[in-house]
Parts: sequence; C-alpha cells; structure tokens
Amino acid sequence: MAKFLSIFTMRNLLVLSLALNLSLIMRVFLDGEKQGFFFSVEQRGPSMGEDKEAHATQRTLQSVSSSSGQEGMEKVINLDHGDPTMYEKYWMMMGERTTVVIPGWHSMSYFSDVKNLCWFLEPEFAKQVFRLHRVVGNAVTEGRHIVVGTGSSQLILAALFALSPKDGSEPMSVVSTAPYYSSYPVMSNHLKSGLYVWAGDTRSFNKEGPYIELVTSPNNPDGFVRHSMVNRTGGILVHDLAYYWPQYTPISSPADHDLTLFTVSKATGHAGTRIGWALVKDAEVAKKMVKFIELNTIGVSRDSQLRAAKILEVMTNTTEIGCSDSGESFFEIIYHLMAERWRLLQAAVNNGSMFSLPDFAPGFCHFLQQETQPQPAFAWLKCEDDAVEDCESFLKGHKILTRGGRSFGVSPKYVRISMLDRDINFSLFLKRLSIIQS
Amino acid sequence: MAKFLSIFTMRNLLVLSLALNLSLIMRVFLDGEKQGFFFSVEQRGPSMGEDKEAHATQRTLQSVSSSSGQEGMEKVINLDHGDPTMYEKYWMMMGERTTVVIPGWHSMSYFSDVKNLCWFLEPEFAKQVFRLHRVVGNAVTEGRHIVVGTGSSQLILAALFALSPKDGSEPMSVVSTAPYYSSYPVMSNHLKSGLYVWAGDTRSFNKEGPYIELVTSPNNPDGFVRHSMVNRTGGILVHDLAYYWPQYTPISSPADHDLTLFTVSKATGHAGTRIGWALVKDAEVAKKMVKFIELNTIGVSRDSQLRAAKILEVMTNTTEIGCSDSGESFFEIIYHLMAERWRLLQAAVNNGSMFSLPDFAPGFCHFLQQETQPQPAFAWLKCEDDAVEDCESFLKGHKILTRGGRSFGVSPKYVRISMLDRDINFSLFLKRLSIIQS
Repeated sequence: MAKFLSIFTMRNLLVLSLALNLSLIMRVFLDGEKQGFFFSVEQRGPSMGEDKEAHATQRTLQSVSSSSGQEGMEKVINLDHGDPTMYEKYWMMMGERTTVVIPGWHSMSYFSDVKNLCWFLEPEFAKQVFRLHRVVGNAVTEGRHIVVGTGSSQLILAALFALSPKDGSEPMSVVSTAPYYSSYPVMSNHLKSGLYVWAGDTRSFNKEGPYIELVTSPNNPDGFVRHSMVNRTGGILVHDLAYYWPQYTPISSPADHDLTLFTVSKATGHAGTRIGWALVKDAEVAKKMVKFIELNTIGVSRDSQLRAAKILEVMTNTTEIGCSDSGESFFEIIYHLMAERWRLLQAAVNNGSMFSLPDFAPGFCHFLQQETQPQPAFAWLKCEDDAVEDCESFLKGHKILTRGGRSFGVSPKYVRISMLDRDINFSLFLKRLSIIQS
Repeated sequence: MAKFLSIFTMRNLLVLSLALNLSLIMRVFLDGEKQGFFFSVEQRGPSMGEDKEAHATQRTLQSVSSSSGQEGMEKVINLDHGDPTMYEKYWMMMGERTTVVIPGWHSMSYFSDVKNLCWFLEPEFAKQVFRLHRVVGNAVTEGRHIVVGTGSSQLILAALFALSPKDGSEPMSVVSTAPYYSSYPVMSNHLKSGLYVWAGDTRSFNKEGPYIELVTSPNNPDGFVRHSMVNRTGGILVHDLAYYWPQYTPISSPADHDLTLFTVSKATGHAGTRIGWALVKDAEVAKKMVKFIELNTIGVSRDSQLRAAKILEVMTNTTEIGCSDSGESFFEIIYHLMAERWRLLQAAVNNGSMFSLPDFAPGFCHFLQQETQPQPAFAWLKCEDDAVEDCESFLKGHKILTRGGRSFGVSPKYVRISMLDRDINFSLFLKRLSIIQS
C-alpha cells in the first residue's frame, strides 16, 4: 500500500522529539557511554529550501565542533561493520509494543510447522513477511516459498548449496560485479567446497558453462541499483535485496526474481536477532536450501522468528493508512533520518576537496509516492587526494575504522563507511571529516 | 555441587502431581490434540521393591491398553527425531520463572561483547553455562573459552573447520565409532569440502596421517559411554557430550578435554532455541571456530542466548542446596521421569522375545551421590526375530517411525527410538510394542 510522505505537524514533531530525547537519555543510563552531545535529528519535509538546508547543516556541524571536547577525539569510531544501532531509538520510541514475552515452555520442539516445506518456519513470521512486502511493494510474494535463515549469510550459503550440481565435474563459478560485498569471496571459498568456487568480478569472468551470479541491489558497498551483468546461458541469479527498502532507495517496482534474499538486520535494525528470509520460486530449490539449513543448524531459532514477527508486525502497522498522522511511521521516520545524515555527510565532504561520494540519480518511489534520492546504508567514500593511496589506512590514522576498497575487489582509494551507527559516532565521524579537510 | 537424591515426601508428590496434571490439561487446550489418556508419571525412590515395580508397570500398560481407542492406533508416532518435547511439562510447572521479556530496542547490535574472543557470546549466557557446569560437575570450565553456536551442529562444523589444516594436500579424515550419530557423514561431506572428509568407522580406519575423531558420550544412538578409539599420532578429538547430564547417565567426573560440545536442546529440552556451546582449551582453535560462525551466520541469535541463559539459571537454581525439598529440582524430576520410562520400556520389551535393548552397567553418579543406571535419550532397539531383517520398516508397518541401523553405520536389525517425546506418544509406542509381541 502506497503511503504519502507528509510534512510533520508541530504536535507530531513534539511527540517525536520528546520520545527521542527520552530514548537518548535512556541510552546514557543503559550503556553508560560517555556521550558529550547528540546529533540533532531534524525531521523535515522535502519542500524545505536549499538555503535553509545549508544553514541547518552549518549549525549542526558547528554544534558538533563546539560541544565535543578532546576526549571525543581520542575515541576510535568503528564504522567498518554495518551495525544498525541507529535504529535503537526508533524502537525505544515505540515502547512496549514490540516487546516479546516467551514463557519457558513455549517453542521447545525443533518443529515450527511440519506441514510446510520449510518445517522450521514460524507461521506467524511467514505471515508478517508476506504482509510487509504487500504494504511496501518491494517484492512479489505470490507463488513464492519462504525459507527462513539465521541471517541472510546462511541463506546465501544455502542458495550456493541448492543451486550447484552435486555431481558436477568441477565446482560451479560464483561471480558478482565489483565492488562486491566483501564477504562473498571468503564465504564461497572458506571450506574449499567442490560444489562452488569464487570466480571474481563479472567483468573479467569469461569461463564457459553454468555459473551463479550474486546481484546485490542496492549494492553493498556503493549503494547503486544493480542488475545481472553476465547474461549468459546457464547463469543462475541470486538477488540479495537486503537494502531494497524505502529508507535506502526508491522502491521502483516489486522485485520479481527466482531467488531473492532479505534480512531483518537491514530492514528493522535487529542485527542481533539473526533472521533473514528467502523468497524462492522453485520448490525444489527451496527444499535444497531447507536441507542445507537442516545440516548446518537444524533449523532457525524459533524465539528469534517470533521476535522478528512481532517487530515486522508493528513496523507494518505504523505504515497503514491512518497511522501517518501519529508521527510513528517507521519508513517515514527512518527515511528522514537517513536523508538528514546524507545531507550532513554531503555537506561535510563538499566542504573540501579531499573526498568524494557517488552521484546518485533520483527515482520515483512507489511506496512514498514521490521522487526520492538513494541514501544508502553505507557511504562509498573516495579519497581524492593524490597523496593518499590507501584511504582505509588514512582514515584509521584519524581513528575512523572503515573497510577499504580492496576488500570489495576495487581500488584502495575507496572505503565503505557505515551510515547506520548511533548518533554519537556519526557526529564524531562528521567532525573528523571536517577537521581533516580544514 | 553434589546433590542427594531424596525420596519424595507426600507433600512434594502432591505438588508435583498437581503441577503435572495442570500442565497436561493445559497441553490439551494449547495443542488441541486428541489426547484420550495420559501416561501416569510415578515418581519413585530407588528403594522400591521389584514386585511393586512390576505391578506398577503392569497397571500402567493395562491403563494404556484400555483407555486408548482405535483412533490412537491409526496415529503415526514419529520417534525418528530426538525432539525433546517431554520437557515441556517441567517448564510449564515452573510457570513464569523462565519467561523472558525482550523489549524491541534490546540486543539490536551484532555485538554481544566486543572484548571477548567470541564477540557474539552473551556474557549472561556464559555466566550461566559456567555456573551450571560447576553445580553439575560434568565439565571442567577453568581455562576454557566458551564458543556459543546455533545448536551444536554448527559447532561440530566449526570444529571441523578450525581443526583442519588450510593448506593440507588432501582433506583431513573425520572418523567416529559405529554406531555413530547419523548426521556425521553427511555433515562432513555435503559441501565436498577440501578441508575434511568423512572416513567412516574408527574400527576400519587405517589411513596414516592426521585425523579428527568425534567421540559422542553417552553415545547417540546407543547410550554407551565412549572414549577415543583410534589413539594414533596426529589424532584430534572432539567430544560431543550433548547427553552427559544426570538424567541420562551417571556423572562419573568432570569432562576434561580439549574441545567439548554441549547443547541446550538435550540439557533442558529447548530444541527450538538452537543454542549450543563449546568449551575450548586452545584460544587459537576457539578463534577459528568463531571465524567459521562469523562466515556462516555472523554470530548467534542474542535473543536465544538470553532465553537460554534464563532457563539455565532457573535450572541451576532448582538444584541448589535447600531447593530439593520444594520438589522442583530439575535433574531429580527428569531423572525420575526417564527412570520410569525406561522401566516401562524394559517391561514391554521383556514381555516377549521379539526385541532386545542394550545392557547397561550402573555407575556412581557424583551429582546424585548414588549409583544410577544409564537411561539414554534414545532406545537402541534390536529386532531379534529372524524374520525381520529391517527393523525400521517393520516398525513403520506398525506406524512407529524410527531411524534404522544403516543410518548409524550398522545392521538394519537395530533402530534408534526417541525416549523424549510427549507422554501421549511414548504411551502409544509402549502399547504398540505390547501388541506386536502379543
């Protein structure tokens, strides 16, 4: 169901602001972190003028500069992983609605649903996945089997197992277009499997015969929309759509592929829950994936599936018609948060000439019913300075941990930087970028 | 801490009986199963005479016979898997004490404890694991690293990865003594790994060079205590002690091995939670296991670890000094339940000459502070009738699903039968054995 991006009323802003403040205060108590300041989240509609935007950015950067002492500059900021802790404050704002209560005698059996092809899939989780996709419009669910996994990593491995012939004379090639997700090569090769083997960047792949192409869209690390590149006979596609959600990219149409992967960690921010799902067209492929997960972990935590179901349910509820006015819409709030972070990052980068960011084309988002900009979960930053060959090492010298281009099959002039960390770290990161360029 | 097995007082029995009845009534409502009768659990001390035992058995079998109608005989009883649903009623009896409540904003990060070698290990789970082992006395924990896994299956795979050389000229041999756990061969071989390969029964293993021996004790499927068998240079042992708990076997001494595996599913019955743990002496081995779990599932569900921690905590609490009188001691209650099931099974088997069971020697259990009999989680039944070559097929004809000897590397005259199913299924199983032999 499409939703309209509404300008927040004053009342909504107040409720949101109070909730966020409360959440931040609670974080201080809960984590005991030394948090000298907070990044000010400004919820704004798309109609705000550029001059206001620039002014707001300047103000926030100044506030970051002036309010953080020397202590903050000593702290190592780890933006290497895509740990989605930014999402904590939204769920704190939602209070008890997503609390799960599991009595000791519940969900003890290995089996969730013996009648389902995926016998370890919780029916309630499946129901909420289908409902969420219908509401967001980012994936066709009709005629698909859901295979739940312990995060989408397990599902990638399950897909490689399911799609490789068991009696092949040599391992099936696994390819992806560089820059590709840094874990693909090592996931494919760490067991020296005779079923599949990493064959690198699609652009240099010229081997005859069947292959598996991993298509990550929007792409990790660079955020661009991706399509298959090889397009040869015998190619099997696995679409990793972990980031195909309205907060990161325009939802152009429902994805309609043979095998599509999603994960709770990037959709809702619950990385610690370790739940992902695959939408699989071919029942035989789904069965082989299920077999892999049986051999690998004998199913998937039922507790985690129940928790994920609850969170997806509330998330979808907030986007239903009539909920927008409450100022609670998950996708609207997170979209604005990401927009604000990207605006600040662009401003910090544009303040000098040492760094650059990708140029994204806007697209029409059918969920938000308006043109939106891609605002990926990672910033794919390039060190433009000729003196800097290795951007990761350079930033590490400024106590910013990132992941360098070589891990993704490209030049070390690039680094991947998480945009989903807590406010405190994102603000420190912006501050250090400014200092580096000053 | 050692515990004394006490004869239950009348008050304790009444409390237990009421709780169990309540739990069974609740099951009817919760599951909506057509349960015409229940297996009567008789908690008895070891001093009861044999004549009373025989009489009680006869009575229970008669009650099973008379109270179950034709309908029960149509039902297929699935005792193929070791699904530990028997444990549900104990945890139902414990009420809200093991209920976990997880707010939506908790445990969202990938990271549980960045300072720990196993960065995805919940400190509270680790604490409760150490405490439980200290109280039960079944494993040395000093100088060990805990690696948590998505069940012990994932930990077996992690151990194979960690213990195999990465640059070996050929895959490392993996062996176990038949009858061995049916999943070992397929877990070792399903990815055609170049790191390790299944090399079968230890008795026929005569290859030179390094190898990994999986030692399961008490053994799955047959329940016997096991030690390593090959004892050659270059051998690395992995001890799978999933069943080394007082309800299944005498606790002779704390296990003191290099790499030892346990799992919540067999300890507490929470199979659906998918949590296991390894106690690992060598930090380098532990680090490689952690690396495997990173690549496989990027850690282990934090929700499930928190739930498991709560359950282990309450379980240990019930065995502390002073708790015995309350009639709630987990190990005492489950020990008696297993003893009763084994007494009934032995009686049903001894009622004819078609089947036999292993002969176990009793041993002194340092936890229960008395001599106890092994009473494994699986019955390793042999079809003694010359006309029956394939015991699994034979029992399948009587609507009892079991797992045949061939899966465990031995004769099809044997089958493995779960002793941990719900009362209704265990009772039907006993009834059918009686009918087959009548």
